[in-house]
Amino acid sequence: MHIFFLPAANEGPVILSEEESKHAIRVLRMQNDDTAKVTDGKGNFFLATMLDAHPKRAILRLSNPTKGYDHWPFHLHLALAPTKNSDRIEWFVEKATEIGVDEISFFSSFHSERRSINLERIEKICVAALKQSQKSRLPKLNELCSFETLLARPFDGQKFVAWIDPSTTATLQSSYQQNSDCTILIGPEGDFSSQEVDKAIEAGFKPVSLGKARLRTETAALVSVHTIQLINQHII
Amino acid sequence: MHIFFLPAANEGPVILSEEESKHAIRVLRMQNDDTAKVTDGKGNFFLATMLDAHPKRAILRLSNPTKGYDHWPFHLHLALAPTKNSDRIEWFVEKATEIGVDEISFFSSFHSERRSINLERIEKICVAALKQSQKSRLPKLNELCSFETLLARPFDGQKFVAWIDPSTTATLQSSYQQNSDCTILIGPEGDFSSQEVDKAIEAGFKPVSLGKARLRTETAALVSVHTIQLINQHII
Repeated sequence: MHIFFLPAANEGPVILSEEESKHAIRVLRMQNDDTAKVTDGKGNFFLATMLDAHPKRAILRLSNPTKGYDHWPFHLHLALAPTKNSDRIEWFVEKATEIGVDEISFFSSFHSERRSINLERIEKICVAALKQSQKSRLPKLNELCSFETLLARPFDGQKFVAWIDPSTTATLQSSYQQNSDCTILIGPEGDFSSQEVDKAIEAGFKPVSLGKARLRTETAALVSVHTIQLINQHII
Repeated sequence: MHIFFLPAANEGPVILSEEESKHAIRVLRMQNDDTAKVTDGKGNFFLATMLDAHPKRAILRLSNPTKGYDHWPFHLHLALAPTKNSDRIEWFVEKATEIGVDEISFFSSFHSERRSINLERIEKICVAALKQSQKSRLPKLNELCSFETLLARPFDGQKFVAWIDPSTTATLQSSYQQNSDCTILIGPEGDFSSQEVDKAIEAGFKPVSLGKARLRTETAALVSVHTIQLINQHII
């Protein structure tokens, strides 16, 4: 069953945007009384019944609100320095949304080769992954900021900085306390500078390793997300 | 330090292929006596010293054989039905090589939308990921075969089939015994047919879930690889 994303969804009639109407009527060929699902991206699903199959402003009636399966008792926040190749960031965002993440931040770092991101495009990828994986909660996406600005933000829970350094012997999986909120920082292709790691430590972040494998930025970010989700499934 | 991949590497002088010679001399601008690393893809590294910086047939002297860090006491074999979009298979192969996998097989399945793969291209991606992640062991890649042919092969260790079905309550992470060899089957976009799952069960495969998240084929495959590697790091 098709899922529409309507941030302002609530019980009762709603008008689809011109783009979504076209998709519903021309591509999905929905007719009056056909049903679909709607998520508000905030944790809720609705049953949607087509009231008026208009190709530019289709009207759906929303009913039967239910909670999505993707609720968990912790907040998982991943902050990464964008990769030079933007495909790799977008790939990470898609996969992290599938696996499950609450918030994604982007920061520029000393060794960053990219200092801008297209947040609108990234949000579209997030929405597509949300629908595809039948989730009900859209990750919060934050605009790119400097590393210092990021560190100055208040964070709840545990704070980790993933750092490839022989002196880092603690691992993310041995340091993370099950079901706690956490923020994980992942550096750019050239890794963090040691000054940046010092600043992160001053700000309360604990350096952790992700294991022996040398991972690309986007792989390290995804492996971090999966590690937290796997530990929190209570089944290891 | 740059890593060259030379499957026939051994101590002593070796001649680089025309392509690798061009890369070494024209791109890396290596000169006589410059050093690099060479891996044979079978677990070994060598120190390589440029003896003759010829742009078409450069000669390196290999010495100081050492073992790579990517040795583990289990065999991890992932078999998947290729995705419709070949980018997604290639992405999986790159990421699985970074994280660590021993063998990748491809099979066509009842719901498969793609019944061919470009193994030569996939191997190139594997080699690039091997170099990038500084690994010494190239995963074994098997040609695409039918699901029945795959099931008829002998496998050592534990055998799992990842299946999205409410009746599947066992998870991969609770079923896998640390440090044991394993083979994991991942279905196509439309999942396995129930007949296929029955055949897999008959062949000794245990149906397992990868958790609550609904994952795409390539994401499920990667999450499986990471789950096994994470459990085997002995640190959860």
